[in-house]
Amino acid sequence: MIGLRALATGDALPQVKPEVMRMYNMRFCPFAQRTRMVLLYKEIPHEVVNVNLRRKPKWLFERNPFGLVPVLEYNNEIVYESSICDDYLDELYVERPLYPKDPHRKAHCRVVMAKYDKMVPSFYKLIKPDENLRLQAKETISEEMKSLEIELGDGAFFGGPQPNMIDFHVYPWFERLTALKSIVEFDILQENNLHRLQLWQKRIEKLTCVKETMQPKEWHLEFFIGLANKNPQYDIGLPQSKV
Amino acid sequence: MIGLRALATGDALPQVKPEVMRMYNMRFCPFAQRTRMVLLYKEIPHEVVNVNLRRKPKWLFERNPFGLVPVLEYNNEIVYESSICDDYLDELYVERPLYPKDPHRKAHCRVVMAKYDKMVPSFYKLIKPDENLRLQAKETISEEMKSLEIELGDGAFFGGPQPNMIDFHVYPWFERLTALKSIVEFDILQENNLHRLQLWQKRIEKLTCVKETMQPKEWHLEFFIGLANKNPQYDIGLPQSKV
Repeated sequence: MIGLRALATGDALPQVKPEVMRMYNMRFCPFAQRTRMVLLYKEIPHEVVNVNLRRKPKWLFERNPFGLVPVLEYNNEIVYESSICDDYLDELYVERPLYPKDPHRKAHCRVVMAKYDKMVPSFYKLIKPDENLRLQAKETISEEMKSLEIELGDGAFFGGPQPNMIDFHVYPWFERLTALKSIVEFDILQENNLHRLQLWQKRIEKLTCVKETMQPKEWHLEFFIGLANKNPQYDIGLPQSKV
Repeated sequence: MIGLRALATGDALPQVKPEVMRMYNMRFCPFAQRTRMVLLYKEIPHEVVNVNLRRKPKWLFERNPFGLVPVLEYNNEIVYESSICDDYLDELYVERPLYPKDPHRKAHCRVVMAKYDKMVPSFYKLIKPDENLRLQAKETISEEMKSLEIELGDGAFFGGPQPNMIDFHVYPWFERLTALKSIVEFDILQENNLHRLQLWQKRIEKLTCVKETMQPKEWHLEFFIGLANKNPQYDIGLPQSKV
């Protein structure tokens, strides 16, 4: 993996090798984590370039005018937006497909994910100072989680015995909810008796592709505190020698 | 077509025939227009149920918890969100495909559409009372339109000789820009010398699937004025006998 340290304004773009799939990433970004899990699950050879999203390199904007991650660069093509990146990888590497073949069932997966995404802004309200806002956010997330528990049903994963796109799409926020437990002082899965989702989280966290993208709770907390103070740190936890 | 009049709170749900593709629609909704064009372009037999989005029927929320259109109902499956509906129809009815087969080129189409969608909120600022807001919106839309003109290149359509998903995805706002010309007092395509897009608009408006979804300029204007006054009318232009 090249470029562990988050590259910032003024840093040179690591030399592009068109035949190597490259992902522009931010280590604490839940959207980018989706794409990293898909890359790892499908065992797609790739390299990662981490970027600093406060002091963005010019070459990031040349790839994505919105200056966001994930961005994929491969064979002189640029793809951005996490859902588009993930679908692209799924179509390019057909082994271990992440959608059902049936168009009805595939559309159903995509509806589940689109509905989940409308909850995401509430997630970031969990750490706002306004208590009413926090309580509303907790309520919205709880409702969405109840709906996900029904969707999961008796399956090991959302995709049944094997994960599908829903699993990788929703997981990053579960990891962060666990990290936030100690400061928001509640456990949404436990309080709502969502036992199936609790077991699912334990199960998905055993997959290599998930383990390799996970960050320790303490690093997530440090990142969130930085974010709340408008000074997020992108290199938390990196060995000094590699920074 | 059943239910020309927009059905509102208290109106009964027209009897569902699972084997008939049904689309829940609002006649002036640009997102729903996308899906109607795809249905017509691919010659998919279907029926349309128009809904009143100020006084929404309970059965709309039972289909889409966000109470928005388009919603598709077919074979006891529900699909919502315009992009998901359109992709679903494209996969279910494989004739006249709306994406390139190559995953790189398909992902490129989806990136173009995602970028365009970020301009959409600016479109609704064109009719705000605040002049600075209007000027900013005009600037944002102009930039996006310049980028689309480059994307179109020398093609008859974004898909080349035949339309693809980009054509149907972006068209509804062109129809509305034309309708708004008289009140916003500018012509974004003309002012920016976007001649290829002007020709493209004339060309796409000759397609049957587009003609059948178009509304006269006067009806669009009446709808926008209603929207600005928080009292949109959903049955503009319908013959009295059918209302």
